[in-house]
Amino acid sequence: MSTAHHHAVEEEIQRLLALGSSRPGPLPVQDHGELWGALSSAVQGGKRFRPALLVSTHEALGGRRDAAAVQVGAALELLHTAFVVQDDVIDGDLVRRGMPSLPGSVAAAARDRGADPRGAQRIGQAAGILAGDLGLVAALRAVARCEAPAPVVDRLLDLFESTLHGSAAGELADVRLQLGRADSPTVLREALAVAELKTALYSFQLPLRAGALLADASPEVLEVLDEIGGLLGIGFQLFDDLLGMFGDEQRTGKSALGDLREGKRTALIAHAATTSAWDELAGLLGDAELGEAEALRARALLTDCGSRTWVEDLARWHVARAAEVAARSRLPAAMVASLDLATAEILRAADLTLPRPTALPASEGLPA
Amino acid sequence: MSTAHHHAVEEEIQRLLALGSSRPGPLPVQDHGELWGALSSAVQGGKRFRPALLVSTHEALGGRRDAAAVQVGAALELLHTAFVVQDDVIDGDLVRRGMPSLPGSVAAAARDRGADPRGAQRIGQAAGILAGDLGLVAALRAVARCEAPAPVVDRLLDLFESTLHGSAAGELADVRLQLGRADSPTVLREALAVAELKTALYSFQLPLRAGALLADASPEVLEVLDEIGGLLGIGFQLFDDLLGMFGDEQRTGKSALGDLREGKRTALIAHAATTSAWDELAGLLGDAELGEAEALRARALLTDCGSRTWVEDLARWHVARAAEVAARSRLPAAMVASLDLATAEILRAADLTLPRPTALPASEGLPA
Repeated sequence: MSTAHHHAVEEEIQRLLALGSSRPGPLPVQDHGELWGALSSAVQGGKRFRPALLVSTHEALGGRRDAAAVQVGAALELLHTAFVVQDDVIDGDLVRRGMPSLPGSVAAAARDRGADPRGAQRIGQAAGILAGDLGLVAALRAVARCEAPAPVVDRLLDLFESTLHGSAAGELADVRLQLGRADSPTVLREALAVAELKTALYSFQLPLRAGALLADASPEVLEVLDEIGGLLGIGFQLFDDLLGMFGDEQRTGKSALGDLREGKRTALIAHAATTSAWDELAGLLGDAELGEAEALRARALLTDCGSRTWVEDLARWHVARAAEVAARSRLPAAMVASLDLATAEILRAADLTLPRPTALPASEGLPA
Repeated sequence: MSTAHHHAVEEEIQRLLALGSSRPGPLPVQDHGELWGALSSAVQGGKRFRPALLVSTHEALGGRRDAAAVQVGAALELLHTAFVVQDDVIDGDLVRRGMPSLPGSVAAAARDRGADPRGAQRIGQAAGILAGDLGLVAALRAVARCEAPAPVVDRLLDLFESTLHGSAAGELADVRLQLGRADSPTVLREALAVAELKTALYSFQLPLRAGALLADASPEVLEVLDEIGGLLGIGFQLFDDLLGMFGDEQRTGKSALGDLREGKRTALIAHAATTSAWDELAGLLGDAELGEAEALRARALLTDCGSRTWVEDLARWHVARAAEVAARSRLPAAMVASLDLATAEILRAADLTLPRPTALPASEGLPA
């Protein structure tokens, strides 16, 4: 995405937020102001990766609806924020990337005003659910209002709605997965399905398809982009799982203790459960009080037993397969180049992990 | 609303639900099926009061867009269900009108499959948030697709969006109100503001205004309907508060212990806090274990101190004022008749309360 486009997306996001502030008209606005203000803060500061992918796709496919692409891109960023905020409610997360999450910051403000901890938590959760609703609706309205012919807008709305259905299913599947046994034989398959539903669908397939729809792309192009988006999304999620365990906190701004303490069921854990390291690892996972020494031990075990390499290989396999599909397709060269940029962004994540503490065991190889 | 219209609304609701079942396409559907199935169950069995008000308003104002009115009416019922379901998450309610709430039934199903109580509760809450999101989006899409000229559809979408902003603010204000002191001097004012934002806005003003917009009504008609909707909505909420305390459980299907156990800050409680009954009442409110004997005592106190009569008078005052505004307006006779029907429906609630246990103290009179 060019700098000019980046500015345009940012301006459009701020315009949509300004629009929302004036929504409820003459009614008492204190609570609305707090809700919308909290949502607006949560929208700030992202890398705008999803709008960038959408706008670049539209451009690379020869689209001429720049203003609409920018508007739908901004809508996607609002949708992303709505998901993030409601995800924080569902997971009970009060912190996100080192900063208070929306539920966390509203709860903190309530405590400052004298609420007891339980009450403050309830207000924070209510605010998260409701601000998410408003973000969702603002996103759909922005899509509905974009400057494109009615049939295109209708397909975009269909796309947003279908994506929401899939993402909601993925979110529920994720909660279910987290509550099941970490060493169940179906965890790996389920973790990959959740990655596809919860991440690939709205972070990759939606921006690719929306950009392509706005560029009046052919059904063949849409289909190949869906396939590529699925692969990139799963690869992205697998790298994100690695960051959650081996990330360099100095550079990611995200604690690498959270996933361990939560005992999160990721592909990494699903693999480790099939190795001899599992007996010891199982005792460390899900310990809410787990300290840095135990975390070091868990990371060494996950590295020694080959799970780290296995997941890295699996992530790279998905990303490489996406590039292969793109190369074999009849996508225009500009589109392939745009996908290469997105891929480079995903692979950059791999560089944010800590160096390996021990010698590498041999990889168990790529999936069949 | 005629029987034919009632059937049409019901059919449209079921059509929208059938549409949603097929949304996520070829992706794994177990969790989506559970989400959408739970939402569909939650939609069933209502009186369709809001769609009826919308369709009747459209008809009474001489509108000719019957199909669109039915479709927007069905959308409103989905929106209502989405609010109810997320409200149950926010309040932690596992039961609604004697039946398991959506979060309650999903949690029960998870327990049956072996989840521990905490995990089951988390799945229930996640499902409530996500099913609410899907209901919200389905409602907006149904409005966006209704058969009316684009500028009318745009105004309807604006109306739904504004309403959502106001209702979300009202919901947050309500949570805040419930967590504050019951005898704070601002409780009555805040309870009325919450009634307006949380109830009047989407249960009365939205259906009235949507029906009128579809009938191409003049700005004067819209304005007077807004005023009437606000008054009816507050009246409705006040009667509902009375039912929550004095309702005949045999006929309402709703426990009359819940509000007491929760210590809910309603107009009733706000008034009682200014009377000599408060010292004893305060000790009974908010006791989660409160039994039938204490409830009887609380009800007798609330009656003796005049609060019951005061709130009944306040409720009737709002409803009567709405009728006055309608009579003084230039609304067509058919519209006034339609409002009379809605008013009769509201007043029927007053007949569902238990007989007074003691002689009536004198009313403290109507508000100025």
